[in-house]
Amino acid sequence: MTNCNCCDKIVYAFEEGDASMRNLLGGKGANLAEMTKLGFPVPPGFTIPTTMCVEYYKLGKKMRDGLMDEVKKHMEALEKKMNKGFGCAENPLLVSVRSGARISMPGMMDTILNLGLNAETVKGLAKLTNNERFAYDAYRRFIHMFSDVVLELPKRNFENILAEHKEKAGVKEDSKLTAEQLQEVVKDYKAYVLKETGKDFPEDVMEQLRLAIEAVFRSWNTPRAVVYRNKEKISHDLGTAVNVQCMVFGNMGDDSATGVAFTRNASTGENVLTGDVLFNAQGEDVVAGVRTPLPLEALKDRDPEAFEQFKDIAAKLEKHYRDVQDMEFTVEKNRLFMLQTRNAKRTALAAVNIAVDLCNEGLITKEEAVCRVTPAQIDMLLHPYFTPEAKAKAVNDGAMIAKGTAASPGAGCGMVVFEAEDAVAMKKEGKEIVLVRPETSPDDASGMAVAEGILTSTGGPTSHAALVARGWGIPCVVGCEAIKVDLSSKTFHVGSKVFKEGDYISIDGATGEVFEGKISRVYPDELIPAAKQILEWADEVKEIGVRANADNPKDARRARALGAKGIGLCRTEHMFMETDRLPIVQKMIMVAGEAEAGKRVLDRLEKQLAETEESKADEVKEKIEAQKKKMESAWNTYMETLGKLLPVQRGDFEGILEAMQGYWVIIRLLDPPLHEFLPDMEETLTKVVELKTKKQFKELSKEEVAELADKEALLEKLRSMHEANPMLGLRVCRLGIVFPEIYKMQARAIFEAACTLKKKGVDVKPEVMIPGVGIVGEMKINREMVDEVAKKVMEEQGVTVDYKVGTMVELPRATVVADKLAEYAQFFSFGTNDLTQTTFGYSRDDVAKTFVPVYIEKGLLKVDPFHQLDREGVGGLMKNAVKIGREANPDLEVGICGEHGGEPTSVEFCHLLGLNYVSCSPYRVPIARLAAAQAKVNNKK
Amino acid sequence: MTNCNCCDKIVYAFEEGDASMRNLLGGKGANLAEMTKLGFPVPPGFTIPTTMCVEYYKLGKKMRDGLMDEVKKHMEALEKKMNKGFGCAENPLLVSVRSGARISMPGMMDTILNLGLNAETVKGLAKLTNNERFAYDAYRRFIHMFSDVVLELPKRNFENILAEHKEKAGVKEDSKLTAEQLQEVVKDYKAYVLKETGKDFPEDVMEQLRLAIEAVFRSWNTPRAVVYRNKEKISHDLGTAVNVQCMVFGNMGDDSATGVAFTRNASTGENVLTGDVLFNAQGEDVVAGVRTPLPLEALKDRDPEAFEQFKDIAAKLEKHYRDVQDMEFTVEKNRLFMLQTRNAKRTALAAVNIAVDLCNEGLITKEEAVCRVTPAQIDMLLHPYFTPEAKAKAVNDGAMIAKGTAASPGAGCGMVVFEAEDAVAMKKEGKEIVLVRPETSPDDASGMAVAEGILTSTGGPTSHAALVARGWGIPCVVGCEAIKVDLSSKTFHVGSKVFKEGDYISIDGATGEVFEGKISRVYPDELIPAAKQILEWADEVKEIGVRANADNPKDARRARALGAKGIGLCRTEHMFMETDRLPIVQKMIMVAGEAEAGKRVLDRLEKQLAETEESKADEVKEKIEAQKKKMESAWNTYMETLGKLLPVQRGDFEGILEAMQGYWVIIRLLDPPLHEFLPDMEETLTKVVELKTKKQFKELSKEEVAELADKEALLEKLRSMHEANPMLGLRVCRLGIVFPEIYKMQARAIFEAACTLKKKGVDVKPEVMIPGVGIVGEMKINREMVDEVAKKVMEEQGVTVDYKVGTMVELPRATVVADKLAEYAQFFSFGTNDLTQTTFGYSRDDVAKTFVPVYIEKGLLKVDPFHQLDREGVGGLMKNAVKIGREANPDLEVGICGEHGGEPTSVEFCHLLGLNYVSCSPYRVPIARLAAAQAKVNNKK
Repeated sequence: MTNCNCCDKIVYAFEEGDASMRNLLGGKGANLAEMTKLGFPVPPGFTIPTTMCVEYYKLGKKMRDGLMDEVKKHMEALEKKMNKGFGCAENPLLVSVRSGARISMPGMMDTILNLGLNAETVKGLAKLTNNERFAYDAYRRFIHMFSDVVLELPKRNFENILAEHKEKAGVKEDSKLTAEQLQEVVKDYKAYVLKETGKDFPEDVMEQLRLAIEAVFRSWNTPRAVVYRNKEKISHDLGTAVNVQCMVFGNMGDDSATGVAFTRNASTGENVLTGDVLFNAQGEDVVAGVRTPLPLEALKDRDPEAFEQFKDIAAKLEKHYRDVQDMEFTVEKNRLFMLQTRNAKRTALAAVNIAVDLCNEGLITKEEAVCRVTPAQIDMLLHPYFTPEAKAKAVNDGAMIAKGTAASPGAGCGMVVFEAEDAVAMKKEGKEIVLVRPETSPDDASGMAVAEGILTSTGGPTSHAALVARGWGIPCVVGCEAIKVDLSSKTFHVGSKVFKEGDYISIDGATGEVFEGKISRVYPDELIPAAKQILEWADEVKEIGVRANADNPKDARRARALGAKGIGLCRTEHMFMETDRLPIVQKMIMVAGEAEAGKRVLDRLEKQLAETEESKADEVKEKIEAQKKKMESAWNTYMETLGKLLPVQRGDFEGILEAMQGYWVIIRLLDPPLHEFLPDMEETLTKVVELKTKKQFKELSKEEVAELADKEALLEKLRSMHEANPMLGLRVCRLGIVFPEIYKMQARAIFEAACTLKKKGVDVKPEVMIPGVGIVGEMKINREMVDEVAKKVMEEQGVTVDYKVGTMVELPRATVVADKLAEYAQFFSFGTNDLTQTTFGYSRDDVAKTFVPVYIEKGLLKVDPFHQLDREGVGGLMKNAVKIGREANPDLEVGICGEHGGEPTSVEFCHLLGLNYVSCSPYRVPIARLAAAQAKVNNKK
Repeated sequence: MTNCNCCDKIVYAFEEGDASMRNLLGGKGANLAEMTKLGFPVPPGFTIPTTMCVEYYKLGKKMRDGLMDEVKKHMEALEKKMNKGFGCAENPLLVSVRSGARISMPGMMDTILNLGLNAETVKGLAKLTNNERFAYDAYRRFIHMFSDVVLELPKRNFENILAEHKEKAGVKEDSKLTAEQLQEVVKDYKAYVLKETGKDFPEDVMEQLRLAIEAVFRSWNTPRAVVYRNKEKISHDLGTAVNVQCMVFGNMGDDSATGVAFTRNASTGENVLTGDVLFNAQGEDVVAGVRTPLPLEALKDRDPEAFEQFKDIAAKLEKHYRDVQDMEFTVEKNRLFMLQTRNAKRTALAAVNIAVDLCNEGLITKEEAVCRVTPAQIDMLLHPYFTPEAKAKAVNDGAMIAKGTAASPGAGCGMVVFEAEDAVAMKKEGKEIVLVRPETSPDDASGMAVAEGILTSTGGPTSHAALVARGWGIPCVVGCEAIKVDLSSKTFHVGSKVFKEGDYISIDGATGEVFEGKISRVYPDELIPAAKQILEWADEVKEIGVRANADNPKDARRARALGAKGIGLCRTEHMFMETDRLPIVQKMIMVAGEAEAGKRVLDRLEKQLAETEESKADEVKEKIEAQKKKMESAWNTYMETLGKLLPVQRGDFEGILEAMQGYWVIIRLLDPPLHEFLPDMEETLTKVVELKTKKQFKELSKEEVAELADKEALLEKLRSMHEANPMLGLRVCRLGIVFPEIYKMQARAIFEAACTLKKKGVDVKPEVMIPGVGIVGEMKINREMVDEVAKKVMEEQGVTVDYKVGTMVELPRATVVADKLAEYAQFFSFGTNDLTQTTFGYSRDDVAKTFVPVYIEKGLLKVDPFHQLDREGVGGLMKNAVKIGREANPDLEVGICGEHGGEPTSVEFCHLLGLNYVSCSPYRVPIARLAAAQAKVNNKK
């Protein structure tokens, strides 16, 4: 077995590798090699490649013969380069031994520093650093680290020994121990090692090195590492490389220093080299924060030559890696060493600014620029957020009281309130409020609209609360089961802690965390210019269109401002829910069933009349008259209520069509079961039983008698409309078949609105969407109905409007018969919320509280399929629908309007399917635009 | 245009056609031609083919030139054959003119008899028949019929003229009018015709014929006929033929007769020529029932020669048509004429007997024999049925009070009862009862089991009542909305009629009819031998296996007796519902959630422990102990209840496996949401509110206080388990993931039962079915669980049992990922009830009362997809699953266990899909066997 395919090299000096050799040298080794190759002053070293680790396991945890010989040759080369000796008492060469796998496994494997120290070399180090205490402290640490990692002795016992010595010396901190005291510690450490292992702590430095290399090989298979790889689906066969690198010391006097720096400001993105430096210090000191570092400029003053060299290197590195670098360096006796460079982590703000700058500087292309910002970062720029300091403080203070499901990102903070009307009242008084409820319903809409945040104890990421909150960009945490809400007393409790109306809480809708008290927030006004620039570039790159789901003109305008080019879903049911209309809607529903059933009887009779011979016609005619009389009252009320709804709906549609002028606007006809508009059954039942029971003991007042009669009638209606599984019931286009007059009224409202605007010169483009089609007849009948109404209205108004009629593909059956639907549908819009429900057989409203969390914990599901589109199952059905639908109708427009339309990996899938557009909540439009562009770039052939 | 492709014939004498020329000559014409060709004495005649009718319309309702010339030639040929003259006063030739389309349209088109009568020929007829009254009556009738059909004058006016004459003569019945009086009628008829049409009634017989032929052509397009063709999807382009045939008279004296006969007894199937005869009578007299006919034997006595000739012809016809014939004949002056023959309609009993006999006689093959019996006929032989006389009487008496949905065939009759316990009590007293409820639930099972019939006011053909009733073979009518059930007063009313407990009603589960009072029933003991024979032949012919859905040993034995070869679905939830177990099950459910959630926390901690370094292990260990203590109580109760359920479940499985020994038995692990086993939420809420309200007015008793606390706790539990859409909730294999201990208990019970039996020498073949799998992980985890339990139990018991583990494919997603499921599943069983629910997005329990009836009325659905498998949508998904599943696992066994498994067209589809078996209710097993054989025969290439 050889280490590579072309030669039998088994150890690589840094000069011999480069960044492309990551598989062989691991990430760290390849990176160090790259910097070395670029001519930057990297402390010399070499890498034992991953293949040696693999071989180690193949040989039954034995090193390959000759490996240590090769390592020794490389150590000799290092001695020459550094002019030091490994194990040399006067001028000792010390090295670090670090793991480095192909794929980064942060913190999973071990590192040993200062290897090469022993009873002799520690003295040399003391002399060289002119700091005996430092040398023995380093030696003590090395023994501790080596014993832990290599000899696998319990760390605790070393800590105990150290603690004894501190007690003896009467000090509390390690740093107060003197050099002499540390020598005693070392002595005890060594005695303990001898006692435990039966062997002296290795004095032979080559032996130390061999053991350390082997320990790194072993660390590949610690339980922690195995679990991590299982979780991240990293192959267990890759093995780790081992990097052996000369130690350099920033603590060799005032001509030495250590520091970290960024080629640009990682918080703001400003193009300034920025960083921290500590003189006469080691890297660890910077990380540990025991001493306060100086700004990088201090180096310029104290060692201008090193500074200029570093500045030059930093610039070159940024250019080389074509991204902002996060670098570590050490100056040892005025000599600069680069210890590490990597792409810098950055804030959302910095990310967009840097991406735009780098592109404008010509360092990266527009395509690369749009890939340098994550959708989550764009999202963060849109929502108020807690300042990191304030949140860290809250966490430290133990203010976090619970964690639920992150449902709508952003930071919410305000006074607890439980009822919508209280929320509205408090808002009027200028208070900021967080609405807390077991769950929300359309009744709560007014309270939700004014809330800084919404918190529910039940429901999942697609519950009513979550959907509305995302739609309105309000931070929201749902399914937070730890909080127990008691609406009657207007309190909630978490464990024994009770919160009442007016108490402050803060919620993080991006993480699901709930805090007691206030946490400071920062509000972005609008997207910053750089973010807008990135999104413009994204628009240039992406293939798939982005529309918004919006139900009113305000949302439509907001969506347009955020870059939506059209409406993918305008729901009409929210319009029905508005307070002033609901009573009319309820009155309409109470008679609709009777009226339409009566109409069907009438239609049957009229058909019968047409087929009846003359002699018997009179009999049928009589029946028709009787039927007309019988249904007169219900039918008149039905027509009257629909007549009242027509102008308000027309107004709704005018507003939206005008706000989106020039773009297509998909309006969905009524979708939810009608009983959703009526009062709750359980409440009604409770009232009825209360009054009936009361009646047994006390005469009811006149008002109560009337109320009982009303509620009993309502209860009977509710019972007759009750469905065991409303999601699978009388809803979607089934309403249009059973209650055609409602759909006709809506169609008329759409075309009257469109014609009115057209006459005013507005460029209107309505698309009428028939929801929940499963059989071709539903599409055909509804298409004909819409065409008929459209024709009639346009004739009345004397103007012609371009329009389309299509369907929401949200049932598995629709995907199977998509070819036939496409004969009548001019567009498909995938309703992936419902399609996920029926494909999986999961009720969207129930899963969060029942089995999906368990499924995720047990690894059956990676994510909630209502959050991220299931490519395999739901996606498989979608793929078929797109294929056969477009084959049958090449002009078919296909989009998606489920919640998935604003989720990046789902947007990518839609791109791969070749959809025409995705549609999502206004606040997710920028995310979708970016995700669409990234999908294009990442899937280039 | 020509009438056929090979010549320019435009009229066909009967001698020139045969049965194969149905498209050209129509059904009747082809049949008359065939009999003529066979040499049987058919009154001569000719057929004007359908093409002439088509041409008539093409020419704008005009006859083709020369058609009547050709007709005239054929009439001359008839005159020669009959030695009579058309329009000849002495010896007049009379003809009938009848329509006859390619596809029979019964009663849709018109017929004219005795054409050729006029003022002269009527006299000849009087002389020939020696009956002047008969002749004028015939003439009067002819004018009436001709005026109606050909001249399109209102019948009513002719009836009025006749009535006037009867009044004048002082008689009540037509037959009391004398010849002279009839002549007056004729006179007035003619005067009326002249007045209305401005023309004399045609005296020219050729003119009569021309007008009659044209009228038949026109009758093709009457509104009635058009509507009928639309409904039956018959093309409007086919046209009708016109048959012109010599009239013969059975009323020419005592040497004349008319009759109908069957080659075998059409009620019993007995192989005896049987029929009725009337001497000196016309066919109309037989049909009208004005005279009582004699048995056919009378002809043998009176005219042995004609009888022998007829007997011979009958035998030949049966042989020729290879089926029992229904014949009409006339003897005119000792000369026999055959007027019609057709395959005889027959009872279910006769159908099976005839099919077996014909096959045994070598007349038809076994394959043909199984196609001579319909699945509905087999079904009728299995259920008690009303005698036709008794039912007809009930209808005549106006006893039918309502009509609902036919849910389980058979005749049910008994006393009305509303509560299960009352039903059981009354049954014990020896009363036959019909259970009447708004709807049924598992609580009603005991009452349903003892009922002669079940009637519900709500629910569809797959509601609980319907499913259970079909499973048990109990007649059932559901969704009978006309009846209003009031459980509190134990009454129901239909309109103003009130029925109370103990009143008799009768229901027909095959038609949905509900009657007041008793109707006599006939009970079949078991399948009659001929039916068994047909089914044995069906088994030889069919390719697909037939299993039964059975939940207990009794049903399993019954199914086996009816020919089931295995169990396709043994539901385990009914076992949980049994009265003695339900309290244990309820106790188990009350703690299961807490116990399993606790276990998951424990598992997490134990996993954490494994990954924790030794120094911190103690902390985790402490947490583990605390968790164990915390969950101890719930866990112990959980284990204890499961421990009690284990032996009873084992007993259940032993019984079923033993009853089906030698065949595979699929046992489905627990499927329904757990809250189905708990009391109803609405009832609980009502009780709580009642007690709470009462408390405001009166101190509660100790018992009431306790009850309130109990019910409040229960209500809280019910609320926490409440799901918005339980069908899409925590059920099917999700139970096995969230509550693995329940599934483990069930698996253990199955394998303990199997091992116990195996040791006794019983050939057990259990198959464990995991319901509702949608993602591959569900199948994998559950397969591993079952294998593990199986292995353990077999080791404990020291015996090995063959078994399989598979899944119910009932979610769209399962069909998409069937290839992956097949890696872990050894069998698929399509659960088409649920698959239909999710594919269409229709809730099985709600559709009947909401939109499906409207859909069927409007033609969007041809049938309820829960009744007949939807081949296009659901079938499309199934097809894909079979294909990719078998590709991935060629040994995969695939069946169906939804209700569709016993529905004939669905069985055919399963045959076409190549499934291994269908499984259905025991009582539908014979139907499925027959349907499977017919599917094979009808789909032979």
